[in-house]
Amino acid sequence: MRTYLECYSCLVRQTFSASQYAGADEPTQRHVMNRVLGALQELNPYSTPPETADLIHRLIRQETGNPDPYRQLKEKSNRDALELLPWMEELVRSSPDPFETAVRLAIAGNIIDFAPNDTYDLRKSVENVLSRPLYKNDVAALQAALQGANWVLYMADNAGETVFDRLLLEQIYPKPVRYCVKPGPAMNDALLEDALAAGIDRYAEIISTGYDAVGVIFERASPEFLDTYAAAPLIIAKGMANYETLSEQGSRLFFLVQAKCSVIAEDMHAPLGSLIAARGT
Amino acid sequence: MRTYLECYSCLVRQTFSASQYAGADEPTQRHVMNRVLGALQELNPYSTPPETADLIHRLIRQETGNPDPYRQLKEKSNRDALELLPWMEELVRSSPDPFETAVRLAIAGNIIDFAPNDTYDLRKSVENVLSRPLYKNDVAALQAALQGANWVLYMADNAGETVFDRLLLEQIYPKPVRYCVKPGPAMNDALLEDALAAGIDRYAEIISTGYDAVGVIFERASPEFLDTYAAAPLIIAKGMANYETLSEQGSRLFFLVQAKCSVIAEDMHAPLGSLIAARGT
Repeated sequence: MRTYLECYSCLVRQTFSASQYAGADEPTQRHVMNRVLGALQELNPYSTPPETADLIHRLIRQETGNPDPYRQLKEKSNRDALELLPWMEELVRSSPDPFETAVRLAIAGNIIDFAPNDTYDLRKSVENVLSRPLYKNDVAALQAALQGANWVLYMADNAGETVFDRLLLEQIYPKPVRYCVKPGPAMNDALLEDALAAGIDRYAEIISTGYDAVGVIFERASPEFLDTYAAAPLIIAKGMANYETLSEQGSRLFFLVQAKCSVIAEDMHAPLGSLIAARGT
Repeated sequence: MRTYLECYSCLVRQTFSASQYAGADEPTQRHVMNRVLGALQELNPYSTPPETADLIHRLIRQETGNPDPYRQLKEKSNRDALELLPWMEELVRSSPDPFETAVRLAIAGNIIDFAPNDTYDLRKSVENVLSRPLYKNDVAALQAALQGANWVLYMADNAGETVFDRLLLEQIYPKPVRYCVKPGPAMNDALLEDALAAGIDRYAEIISTGYDAVGVIFERASPEFLDTYAAAPLIIAKGMANYETLSEQGSRLFFLVQAKCSVIAEDMHAPLGSLIAARGT
């Protein structure tokens, strides 16, 4: 997926938010904004949204001097999600179809994302997702594919969402899983510390893409990650950035995501806000 | 009010929407976007949002070659609002306080605005506004001020909203009113033809600011308008752009507006989405 002109307003809004999160004073915020407006004018129209976000958030980190503007928000996300964990575990335990409920919860966790609209009510969102039909529902195919796979590569998305992923990892356990985070700050994406805060290490080996940007940028990922990615018999990919960078990578991929922006929704041929558990093509 | 960094994402979104409304092809849309990003880099930080919007929408009109990108949307707004007119007239007629109901309807009409979020459900919004309290309620003061004024200057906002204004003008009638529109296309602001479509000429003399931008830019308004503005004993100003340019012009002004963006809401010390009938200071 490429960066559409429709994406620009969102990138500009992120610039404003991230500069504020970074604690920059107003002249610095204005300087950062001007740098980003300049970068957007020179943008390669074929770059993916995560490549563009990489460029912009790297600029923001450099110019504000804050190496991790989203750190506090990520910690809050972890805490908020961990508070819901006992309740969610009970939801899975008492469900007639624990696997599907765990998949739905993993999708529900995808609401934790400060990029598209900065506010959300976590518990309400979880209840909402559990009550709505999946717009694309390849859950049975995912369950069947899991039976046939020796191990699984699980591409994480945001901090806090990691807690929701844990519920699905519990269902996949004891099948080996490699849970892939980012090696350094990239918006509010999960890092090793966020995966550990969620207790992911009880159910999976934690690895990283080797490059501190959202999604996967193959040209910059580490050789170790690329080997792992190439070898994986089954890949579960969470969230929009992973969809944006992996959407044309074949049927061993399953995307668990909420279509939170109209550009992605259109690309998925799904209504805005849809809950998606879709096998790749 | 000045153009805050928080406003930039909205201006960029408007650029995308307006280029599409103008029917521009993608290379033209990209060219327009780059021109606007460049203009934002060079923006005087003390310009008001309507001055900035003027700069941007003038660029869009020039570069797309479409003198009125919002024409079709304005016509649709007029039609949609006129469809609701008999129902709204009955609401006023059957109200225990027809004046306040008419004021509320004039505020409800302010939802017709493609700038802040591009979609709305008109009848639902009207019902919603009628059911919610006004966050600032200077309706009694407005009614008293009307008693003491010989005539009224009414600053219109968007096309379609004009139909809602008509209900309030009916209440003010036969006191003379000058209803002020824009002399040429400025986003979806009402022009003479939109005021006529709403039947405003039955209740008011239709005048214009003399300059084709949203709100009032005093440096560019016509001498005729400036004379009228200076002489007006009472001014009713609709919508955000009028608030942004007239908010510090004294107690002969009354603002009827919905606080549809967080910047305006903060400036008004009101929650986002508030319904406002506020006397100026």
